[in-house]
Amino acid sequence: MIQIVSTVEEVRNIVKAEKAKGKSIGFVPTMGFLHEGHVSLIKKAKEENDFVVVSIFVNPTQFGPNEDYSIYPRDLDRDSKLSEHGGADLIFHPTVDIMYPKGSKTTVEVSDITERLCGASRPGHFKGVTTVVTKLFNIVAPHRAYFGEKDAQQLTVLQKMVKDLNVDIEIVPCPIVREEDGLAMSSRNVNLTSEDRKAALVLSRSLRTAKEKILQGEKNVGTIQSLIKSIIEEEPLVAIDYIEIVDGYTLEPIEAVNGKVLIALAAKVGKVRLIDNVIMEG
Amino acid sequence: MIQIVSTVEEVRNIVKAEKAKGKSIGFVPTMGFLHEGHVSLIKKAKEENDFVVVSIFVNPTQFGPNEDYSIYPRDLDRDSKLSEHGGADLIFHPTVDIMYPKGSKTTVEVSDITERLCGASRPGHFKGVTTVVTKLFNIVAPHRAYFGEKDAQQLTVLQKMVKDLNVDIEIVPCPIVREEDGLAMSSRNVNLTSEDRKAALVLSRSLRTAKEKILQGEKNVGTIQSLIKSIIEEEPLVAIDYIEIVDGYTLEPIEAVNGKVLIALAAKVGKVRLIDNVIMEG
Repeated sequence: MIQIVSTVEEVRNIVKAEKAKGKSIGFVPTMGFLHEGHVSLIKKAKEENDFVVVSIFVNPTQFGPNEDYSIYPRDLDRDSKLSEHGGADLIFHPTVDIMYPKGSKTTVEVSDITERLCGASRPGHFKGVTTVVTKLFNIVAPHRAYFGEKDAQQLTVLQKMVKDLNVDIEIVPCPIVREEDGLAMSSRNVNLTSEDRKAALVLSRSLRTAKEKILQGEKNVGTIQSLIKSIIEEEPLVAIDYIEIVDGYTLEPIEAVNGKVLIALAAKVGKVRLIDNVIMEG
Repeated sequence: MIQIVSTVEEVRNIVKAEKAKGKSIGFVPTMGFLHEGHVSLIKKAKEENDFVVVSIFVNPTQFGPNEDYSIYPRDLDRDSKLSEHGGADLIFHPTVDIMYPKGSKTTVEVSDITERLCGASRPGHFKGVTTVVTKLFNIVAPHRAYFGEKDAQQLTVLQKMVKDLNVDIEIVPCPIVREEDGLAMSSRNVNLTSEDRKAALVLSRSLRTAKEKILQGEKNVGTIQSLIKSIIEEEPLVAIDYIEIVDGYTLEPIEAVNGKVLIALAAKVGKVRLIDNVIMEG
């Protein structure tokens, strides 16, 4: 059985012992309730490193007051089996008290690029992410850390943080993993009703259509946004939060597709907020 | 001659090579124009570690718009001799462009304890300090880092940051070093006129008197503050910024002296802002 530890000291001692043997360390930070997307990160980490640590921590500071922190799905037993299956060597599963002892006062923040897209709908979300990832990086001290492109903005924000703060860890982006019918894998999908589950397909379908349109030569961002909007609006169970087409490196707004772009959207499907995106050259 | 490097890669390569040999790394971050206080930090670092790195960087982000960034004294040649004399092995002397490339957007912030004392007079100062120290810690990756108790609030803020963010570096506090006549050593003392230099003695003298009063049994914070104030006000060249007596661990305001306290003050002496303090059990 894979080893599961909950304290900072245990992780540090185990990782330091591996490093002393000359082993490289890969790290996959997660909020648990793992799916094939997470497993793909773990497998990639294991391909590129000798020893792989998975953290499982539903981080309260990245949830807003009216968000789904309390109903975010949790299942450590299932997670430990999937981590082991992916090739992980250690699970770090701390409590909230271990991660945020009473009186914690320090935060890490990336300005500007955190204010758009998901940042506009979820104030404070990315500050929670950058703070907890800094802590986890300092605890695990890996050589490489693996993040999915599903959370495209999170990935860009963390790459910026690592560069700005001279963090000596390589961030490795990994492609979105989808269900056979196109739905992007997410721990939150389990909270969809079967009706919602069908309706949610409109998100990936609208992105595929937009991608085709761009490949056919469409450059106008407004036109592509309207196309995505009109497809999603045909589905009454889905309420759009945002549809954005931005520079694929900086997340800056653009007017015309020219080079690497991120087409990102967020929507409420029933009671569940889902995100999806396409990164492409246009 | 001591080796001086200016790039992140050079520091990392040298430090990693020393660590690979099993050496422990001590780090003394400074803004340069070193004095005996800094040398005492370097000596202490060398006593406790195999290899000592001194950084010399006048960090623009910790100066306010009307502060003394442009006239802060600089002398790398002198600093390299003093560093070598103290036992340092390497100087990291980056440019502003190396530390803050165009488009830097990430900051580290400790709330609450940064808003009092010097934080009240210097908004944004401690955010600049915690951000640059995080960067320097990530670049040098030492086992231990040495800070003077002269900057008592800075020390407390950095200890809090290290604890909150799980930074795996030991912060080692070192006592204030004073001139023979009692003036706390500071790189800024060089900017005092000879008149100011004499007037500045009132700061350490007022703190000594306050300390004696507490040792004689005085507990009332208001009484001790008034005593310090009345002593300093006798000196027309000195303008008080603040005089605070706070809990020595948390920097929280207190009404009565009971246990470890910090008596801290800041004042303009001529055009130069100086700080001084006493940490004591009362």
